[in-house]
Amino acid sequence: MARPDGRAPNELRPVTISRNWLRHAEGSALVEFGDTRVLCAASVEDGVPRWRRGTGEGWVTAEYAMLPRATDTRGARESVKGKIGGRTHEISRLVGRSLRAVVDFKAMGEHTITLDCDVLQADGGTRTAAITGAYVALVDAVKYLRRQRNLKKNPLAGSVSAVSVGVVQGQPRLDLNYLEDSVADTDMNVVVTGEGRFIEVQGTAERTPFDRGTLDSLLDLAVGGCTQLSELQKKALAG
Amino acid sequence: MARPDGRAPNELRPVTISRNWLRHAEGSALVEFGDTRVLCAASVEDGVPRWRRGTGEGWVTAEYAMLPRATDTRGARESVKGKIGGRTHEISRLVGRSLRAVVDFKAMGEHTITLDCDVLQADGGTRTAAITGAYVALVDAVKYLRRQRNLKKNPLAGSVSAVSVGVVQGQPRLDLNYLEDSVADTDMNVVVTGEGRFIEVQGTAERTPFDRGTLDSLLDLAVGGCTQLSELQKKALAG
Amino acid sequence: MARPDGRAPNELRPVTISRNWLRHAEGSALVEFGDTRVLCAASVEDGVPRWRRGTGEGWVTAEYAMLPRATDTRGARESVKGKIGGRTHEISRLVGRSLRAVVDFKAMGEHTITLDCDVLQADGGTRTAAITGAYVALVDAVKYLRRQRNLKKNPLAGSVSAVSVGVVQGQPRLDLNYLEDSVADTDMNVVVTGEGRFIEVQGTAERTPFDRGTLDSLLDLAVGGCTQLSELQKKALAG
Amino acid sequence: MARPDGRAPNELRPVTISRNWLRHAEGSALVEFGDTRVLCAASVEDGVPRWRRGTGEGWVTAEYAMLPRATDTRGARESVKGKIGGRTHEISRLVGRSLRAVVDFKAMGEHTITLDCDVLQADGGTRTAAITGAYVALVDAVKYLRRQRNLKKNPLAGSVSAVSVGVVQGQPRLDLNYLEDSVADTDMNVVVTGEGRFIEVQGTAERTPFDRGTLDSLLDLAVGGCTQLSELQKKALAG
Amino acid sequence: MARPDGRAPNELRPVTISRNWLRHAEGSALVEFGDTRVLCAASVEDGVPRWRRGTGEGWVTAEYAMLPRATDTRGARESVKGKIGGRTHEISRLVGRSLRAVVDFKAMGEHTITLDCDVLQADGGTRTAAITGAYVALVDAVKYLRRQRNLKKNPLAGSVSAVSVGVVQGQPRLDLNYLEDSVADTDMNVVVTGEGRFIEVQGTAERTPFDRGTLDSLLDLAVGGCTQLSELQKKALAG
Amino acid sequence: MARPDGRAPNELRPVTISRNWLRHAEGSALVEFGDTRVLCAASVEDGVPRWRRGTGEGWVTAEYAMLPRATDTRGARESVKGKIGGRTHEISRLVGRSLRAVVDFKAMGEHTITLDCDVLQADGGTRTAAITGAYVALVDAVKYLRRQRNLKKNPLAGSVSAVSVGVVQGQPRLDLNYLEDSVADTDMNVVVTGEGRFIEVQGTAERTPFDRGTLDSLLDLAVGGCTQLSELQKKALAG
Repeated sequence: MARPDGRAPNELRPVTISRNWLRHAEGSALVEFGDTRVLCAASVEDGVPRWRRGTGEGWVTAEYAMLPRATDTRGARESVKGKIGGRTHEISRLVGRSLRAVVDFKAMGEHTITLDCDVLQADGGTRTAAITGAYVALVDAVKYLRRQRNLKKNPLAGSVSAVSVGVVQGQPRLDLNYLEDSVADTDMNVVVTGEGRFIEVQGTAERTPFDRGTLDSLLDLAVGGCTQLSELQKKALAG
Repeated sequence: MARPDGRAPNELRPVTISRNWLRHAEGSALVEFGDTRVLCAASVEDGVPRWRRGTGEGWVTAEYAMLPRATDTRGARESVKGKIGGRTHEISRLVGRSLRAVVDFKAMGEHTITLDCDVLQADGGTRTAAITGAYVALVDAVKYLRRQRNLKKNPLAGSVSAVSVGVVQGQPRLDLNYLEDSVADTDMNVVVTGEGRFIEVQGTAERTPFDRGTLDSLLDLAVGGCTQLSELQKKALAG
Repeated sequence: MARPDGRAPNELRPVTISRNWLRHAEGSALVEFGDTRVLCAASVEDGVPRWRRGTGEGWVTAEYAMLPRATDTRGARESVKGKIGGRTHEISRLVGRSLRAVVDFKAMGEHTITLDCDVLQADGGTRTAAITGAYVALVDAVKYLRRQRNLKKNPLAGSVSAVSVGVVQGQPRLDLNYLEDSVADTDMNVVVTGEGRFIEVQGTAERTPFDRGTLDSLLDLAVGGCTQLSELQKKALAG
Repeated sequence: MARPDGRAPNELRPVTISRNWLRHAEGSALVEFGDTRVLCAASVEDGVPRWRRGTGEGWVTAEYAMLPRATDTRGARESVKGKIGGRTHEISRLVGRSLRAVVDFKAMGEHTITLDCDVLQADGGTRTAAITGAYVALVDAVKYLRRQRNLKKNPLAGSVSAVSVGVVQGQPRLDLNYLEDSVADTDMNVVVTGEGRFIEVQGTAERTPFDRGTLDSLLDLAVGGCTQLSELQKKALAG
Repeated sequence: MARPDGRAPNELRPVTISRNWLRHAEGSALVEFGDTRVLCAASVEDGVPRWRRGTGEGWVTAEYAMLPRATDTRGARESVKGKIGGRTHEISRLVGRSLRAVVDFKAMGEHTITLDCDVLQADGGTRTAAITGAYVALVDAVKYLRRQRNLKKNPLAGSVSAVSVGVVQGQPRLDLNYLEDSVADTDMNVVVTGEGRFIEVQGTAERTPFDRGTLDSLLDLAVGGCTQLSELQKKALAG
Repeated sequence: MARPDGRAPNELRPVTISRNWLRHAEGSALVEFGDTRVLCAASVEDGVPRWRRGTGEGWVTAEYAMLPRATDTRGARESVKGKIGGRTHEISRLVGRSLRAVVDFKAMGEHTITLDCDVLQADGGTRTAAITGAYVALVDAVKYLRRQRNLKKNPLAGSVSAVSVGVVQGQPRLDLNYLEDSVADTDMNVVVTGEGRFIEVQGTAERTPFDRGTLDSLLDLAVGGCTQLSELQKKALAG
């Protein structure tokens, strides 16, 4: 019942956060969870979407996407297909919602920050890696915005990280890679603040419906993993 | 801190399931949770999607949509906009996944059942009402399929119902209507089998991140609500 | 040469108009012509399309659509296909044009009323049922608008109803159901005012080109049917 | 009450049919009704649409479109907008239906003829000009098909022409140009066989609902116009 | 090694430019290079695209398209497919860029001229015929604009023509028709001003990569051809 | 007249080719020309497009795209806009055509290699960097294919590199960065084989039409640059 890469059940893959990987973006990070590699770019723009104009409040949104050959077999480009698939939409919404949970929109003023999370290489856990990396890019974009617009109050009210957990061969495990993910019975993505509170809990029975005990074990694992990720984010941002 | 319609915190809205509301569909139900009204139709077709051909297994999928004037202000038709929004995609995927959790695809043979869930009127909880009603339509469609194709084994391995729960003014509540939903701090959709196991748990901090205690209270409420819904489904199917 | 449901050649199917079937819409009706069931909702919005701005005149438009399982075999959703079919476009245009014929746009002021006609179940004559039901929804929406905006003059200059007629087995018949429609030689949709004048006459030779005598008989039948429908509309609106 | 171009009420505009205007098409005609100029091309292809395969019967379909600068002000290209408008769809369907009314599909065998009707310049009556010209292109395409496939029976069972009529300043008139069309009270498009029977009658009250007497006068005018057009088609085809 | 139509290697096909072929457009030309037939229409509109507003400068753009039966076998309409193909996009951009090279945008003021180039019949060299004809339409549209807006300075700073050249059976040839184009080793489109300077040079090795000597021979041929085309444009514009 | 980064007119930017940057792709390279950074992935698939089936020949195609924040200001995603822009189409076609010029399709057998070139960061010359990097990815993919399918003959008949050249402030320069590109008078992209023959020459007068002498100088610079790039490709492939 050993994990394919020999990790302990509660062990993360090697995580790397390369801050400011891009030259043009106001904030950016290339985040790696093992072989999963996501490029996160934060763009600051004046103004907000039409439905929010005149409120004096800002907006944060996200777009997640995957390069065609991020995966084992090449996937068709959504730009070529002419429409965005359900999975892409769903993850983009999750990333945006997760980051908005720690933003003080009043303090931002009417500006928009867009987080582009492009998966360059996929090996499981791309959406949680995206959230974890996007937070780092967001911090730098918010700093840029404060400096540029002379904002008094910090628009960031906390930090965010995320990790996937799941049950494989009856064993709850942290940070599944693709191999584990594809045979998991239950799969859960958990988004947690730096203070250990939940922003999002999404658990799905991939095969067999799960009970309360399993749910509890998975939540414990996830909170533990996010505590470590939160430390790594701090280190990257201190650099 | 009374609820707008005077319900107890753990009380469902009046729930009605009108089975066989449609003449052409192999299974159908008009399901009402208070003023939320969803028309669920199950269609049986021979064959399965391309990627599943030759496996001998069936498929169950769902499409959720909302009529333009289901809501307080008219929404643009997705057919006119030429693309399906992220919310629609996400809910369609949730409904399909939830029902697939109780289907034995081998027993189905290579047939597809599509569940169309069209919201005629919306007052909160449309996705969970859709799942609850779609299960009833699915049961009749599966019966039709068994009869037509002389299937030996029952392709249905259990029952499914779903309900929304949330924290409003600090109080965990069952089955939020739109008014409550729009001011909730935390919002959770829970899909449960007839035996009380979880198929899907989706909790989101709409305003303030939530703690483990809140999560536990909401899950308790949801399981209680689904037990009642499961009984109502049985009655409708016995009719 | 008896009709499949035993009706006389000049006899309508049982027609039911359930007014105010929806809670949110400013006007609504669930209209049934036998098993054909169309949900009509009228939405009042401030402002008019760009090309009409500044004219001081209002606008009335319609969108017709069919639920996937309204028909005997499931049809693909137009929102999923990403485009609206020719038939849908054509009927939406017909419904809008028919209702506009009795509207005084100057009296409306710069407001728009949109009529959504969604076919929940189809058994022939859906477009004419839609027009007949939409008129009822329109009346309530116009009343709402007059009250809200304190309009002096009534924006409604007359009433509208519609029916299909056709030649089946050489016999001109009123209000064809799907079975009759699919074998008709000539098919005609006629839209008539409450005073018996024509708004629209659309006759098509489905098989054999038709002569003037046939055209005359069909028009007689249609005017007779619309007279009855006009009475049913009045009763529904008096309720 | 004279017409803008001095014509009698029952007088057609100068009509020209330039047969075989294109080199590649199996049949073609550049048809002109005054300044209205439509290029009609008939293409013969083996096979039929999927839903018709295996029936042994052929198919005839049409696509109508307008060049951006066919009209007084430039219109956006439908290819650039990414979707076909309702009017285009509706007219394409009308043209196809009109021509199919004189085709014997059994005699055609499983071949498809597509009629492309592209409006190079518009001055009213483009859809009826398109039908009139497309018939000429169809005749040549059918001849080509008979020769190529050695068909015994003629797949053409008759001829088709079409004209618009309308009431302008109270006067019923034949073949309206754009100026007249834009101020007409009633507008009617009529498709007639060479034997004077009706294939399609589409009358619309643009302003005031019309009575039976008006309808009758318009039909008389249209049948007279189509008789002349039928002669012009014969001449073009004899050339 | 004679050419299929007997021309000398440096000989153009018969070229005809029918100016003002359209009634509504501010400038137009039906241009023919042998059997290649392109209808060019220039439309003058007030205002410029959003990104250019407030600059005081005008804009010139082009849209190229092909009728479905311009070619030997019918092509699907891009409006029906719902998207514009790469080839269409590329040629539209080339035509626009070529004409902009001789336009003084300051002298134009904030107006836009759109050049629609629709290929009615294709026999090779459609893009270069389009540029050559569009220039003629542009001249008339610019004259119209100067007159209407009383522009002091001529917005046209030169003339433009274009031709294709290629290597067929080892021989450099001018103005390839479709037959030659389809077997050419190297294919080059060259856009030249009336003064013989280059606006665009696009050479492609269709089979074997080519050397500098071949490139030089092709450029010589192209400049010679454009000198003749420039004369033909002058004659058409003098008419 | 010094260049912004102090380079000599005939000097390339620092060029880096990181081979096998991706784990899943059969061939890949992250190519950098100064700050321009393009990720090239080659995917091998069995089978060829429909129009090529049964010929026994392979196919090579390319898709070029840019991440939203590759540029100084964020661009909208083409997947979100629902269509691919003209520039993207044009460059994808250029990349594919350039690589196909050195491929022996018969030797490949019926397999397809797709080259995905995604610009992670843009600073001028992205299309020529894409071609240069894609060749390296192609070589590895072809090796993989030969090994897997035991192909006797090498499907690669040569090598390809590309570079941009242009005239800035009257001076012909090699490998323009974005700053130079945006003020260039003439801009040319040149694709050259390892043996110094031309595959593609695309020169455009961005401001002033250019003469033969300028064209000649630019071609000399480009051939010189490609000679150096060809050496760098060899080194990367030897690694």
